[in-house]
Amino acid sequence: MRVELLCTGDELVTGLTPDTNSPDLEARLFELGIKVQRVVLVGDVREDIARALREAASRADVVIVSGGLGPTADDFTAECAAVAAGVPLVEDAGTLRFLRERAQQRGRELTPNVARMALVPEGAEVVPNPVGAAPLFIVRMGGCRLYFLPGVPREYRTLVDGEVVPRVRTELELRAGRTYRAFRLLRTVRVPESVLDARVAPLAKAHPRVVFGFRTHAPENQLKLMAEAPTQAEADAALAAAEAAARAELGLAVYGADGDTYTGVLARLLTEARATLSLAESCTGGLISAQLTAVPGASSFLLGGAVVYTEQMKMAWAGVSAELLERHGAVSNPVAMAMAEGIRAACQTTYGLSVTGFAGPTGGTAEDPVGTVYCALAVEGAPTRCERFSIAGDRDLVRLFAASYALELLRERLLTAPSSP
Amino acid sequence: MRVELLCTGDELVTGLTPDTNSPDLEARLFELGIKVQRVVLVGDVREDIARALREAASRADVVIVSGGLGPTADDFTAECAAVAAGVPLVEDAGTLRFLRERAQQRGRELTPNVARMALVPEGAEVVPNPVGAAPLFIVRMGGCRLYFLPGVPREYRTLVDGEVVPRVRTELELRAGRTYRAFRLLRTVRVPESVLDARVAPLAKAHPRVVFGFRTHAPENQLKLMAEAPTQAEADAALAAAEAAARAELGLAVYGADGDTYTGVLARLLTEARATLSLAESCTGGLISAQLTAVPGASSFLLGGAVVYTEQMKMAWAGVSAELLERHGAVSNPVAMAMAEGIRAACQTTYGLSVTGFAGPTGGTAEDPVGTVYCALAVEGAPTRCERFSIAGDRDLVRLFAASYALELLRERLLTAPSSP
Repeated sequence: MRVELLCTGDELVTGLTPDTNSPDLEARLFELGIKVQRVVLVGDVREDIARALREAASRADVVIVSGGLGPTADDFTAECAAVAAGVPLVEDAGTLRFLRERAQQRGRELTPNVARMALVPEGAEVVPNPVGAAPLFIVRMGGCRLYFLPGVPREYRTLVDGEVVPRVRTELELRAGRTYRAFRLLRTVRVPESVLDARVAPLAKAHPRVVFGFRTHAPENQLKLMAEAPTQAEADAALAAAEAAARAELGLAVYGADGDTYTGVLARLLTEARATLSLAESCTGGLISAQLTAVPGASSFLLGGAVVYTEQMKMAWAGVSAELLERHGAVSNPVAMAMAEGIRAACQTTYGLSVTGFAGPTGGTAEDPVGTVYCALAVEGAPTRCERFSIAGDRDLVRLFAASYALELLRERLLTAPSSP
Repeated sequence: MRVELLCTGDELVTGLTPDTNSPDLEARLFELGIKVQRVVLVGDVREDIARALREAASRADVVIVSGGLGPTADDFTAECAAVAAGVPLVEDAGTLRFLRERAQQRGRELTPNVARMALVPEGAEVVPNPVGAAPLFIVRMGGCRLYFLPGVPREYRTLVDGEVVPRVRTELELRAGRTYRAFRLLRTVRVPESVLDARVAPLAKAHPRVVFGFRTHAPENQLKLMAEAPTQAEADAALAAAEAAARAELGLAVYGADGDTYTGVLARLLTEARATLSLAESCTGGLISAQLTAVPGASSFLLGGAVVYTEQMKMAWAGVSAELLERHGAVSNPVAMAMAEGIRAACQTTYGLSVTGFAGPTGGTAEDPVGTVYCALAVEGAPTRCERFSIAGDRDLVRLFAASYALELLRERLLTAPSSP
């Protein structure tokens, strides 16, 4: 199946915004066994868009088009689609109704520029957008099917996952002579990509039907397993065997698979253990709180989080003594432990978790340079545990990995002592 | 001048590697006043590359091609160039000599696969590569000039800077009637894209040399202004006039321009005012803290942040009284105000900022459904200000906009009462 991507927008051809949508979709399609034949980026110029649409439709079976479906004056992809297909634009009644209700919910009038989003090429199939205003629409030109999506990354991804990829997969399955595939993404933390590769690569030989791939998405490293076989049952069996071998090798480093999220997994573990949590964050500055509270229902386990940049607030909220701060400094093993114990006592939670360190770009000492982070976990009836980490990278990376390492103390505890406290 | 970019490589169409070369070159060309008309990515397939070359040459004056010039089996762009131009491949004596010397310096023999890099389409102009093996070569096809560069970013950038951009600039200067461009991105918050469009679009008529464009990157909406004129001075003047008109219309909603970031701007305002800040976050759960502490040096103004999901912690850390919580509920105007005042007192800061609301997916009341958020700002010597917002969207969006609206209370205060406290 010949697939092309076409992305529109001046920002994509003037160096302002890199095209991040396409690599995601390319990877998703590659998992289905489709190598995208061509990606085309064009600016907001009507003739260029219409021409690129016609050219792509003449070459490909499927074209996935994005951008230019919004309410503003430089959004005219639907118009170009109509020109390229040689049909008029028509108003889609369902979309118009949806846009009117959406405006009312926001206490606004349906303005003419918003109403324009209901205009689609005649004959197009219209699919509602669950996370935005502009719908997905699908146009046939000759033997080619063109999907038109908004370019806003969140809407694009939602429609790609929910509509485009499933439809392309179905179309693929209807074709004869296909290879069956089974796919698993194992999500790991704490293992660097090179270590992951060195540990897992030797397994590949025993699983000839499975392609082992690696992908980094800090702070995660992901292991992609793709099995290919003449039947679905054989592909599934080959995948299951390879997955079992990889999990045996990697142990606790695998926190989840496929669509799992780290915070979602951790939230489930906390909920199952009926445990509560409090946080005292210094160098991560609220990042751990923000990550955990993104999970719906986080209020049932996260009782309190304190961002304690100053010594004063470390004392006031996390119960650290002035004497300890004076003797060891704020970035130290004893202060991290005191923060974890103090925040747990203040919030009366099952667990107290703390982070203190030097995120950079300035700060640090000779013994504890920028990138040094102490994480501690306090729990009733067990000694408080503290670990020191040396993290390479800029401020963002130090904060990201510091948050990940801190949460790993908690996940490991929840997995190895599940029945406690 | 019509310019297209063509990049080859399987890694570019399978989601493995994002194309970082093109945005750099697009920006360089845009500075010359050239908006790239099209960027095309194709995999390592001979027919696809040859076809894309012919198509691009038929549309453009200049095509900048990259990738596939190395020594390995999947490097065959020179071959495709010869096919597309209808000429044979010939050995370039200068390049062969250079490759042989280069191999000798490294103590190696010149292998046949390395020697292949000396083969170029007949009639091509060959330019040595100062930082790698494969040369730049330039081919004429009809009225189009095609530049072929290695895709390795370091070699690509060196040849772009040293050869391609200077040559394109010279060609541009030789042409009569070139268009000069000037560009500004205005970054706004709090104004929905459709409202932004409705308020700004009427200005366009008075600024015929300026193209007005819009882009959404929640919680921001951006206004793109691009001026085109026969001289740079006229383009700059047209841009300045349009920018002034847009700023006059949008007022405080414009927080910055071009590469500014919201938190960076806010951090500068706080630092200039020598002001300090404390945060009491309920539904945003640390998101505001995390955003602000991503700015290097945030510890100089952000003294403390409290994530207070529970009533108990709202009382303990933000000094909210049990009676107030009982009477009004945690999501209410009086509690938001008490949180802002209480956190300011606890941390002894210039400003105290609070957020409380229903982020969803569950919760809310008849009067205050999911998406209702109260934000309050406390400062000494002025009444505490509280605003209620109704935010549409899922949990992530409610949190994102709640954080943005809360910070807007602070930014507005800093801009309108800059000398206080």
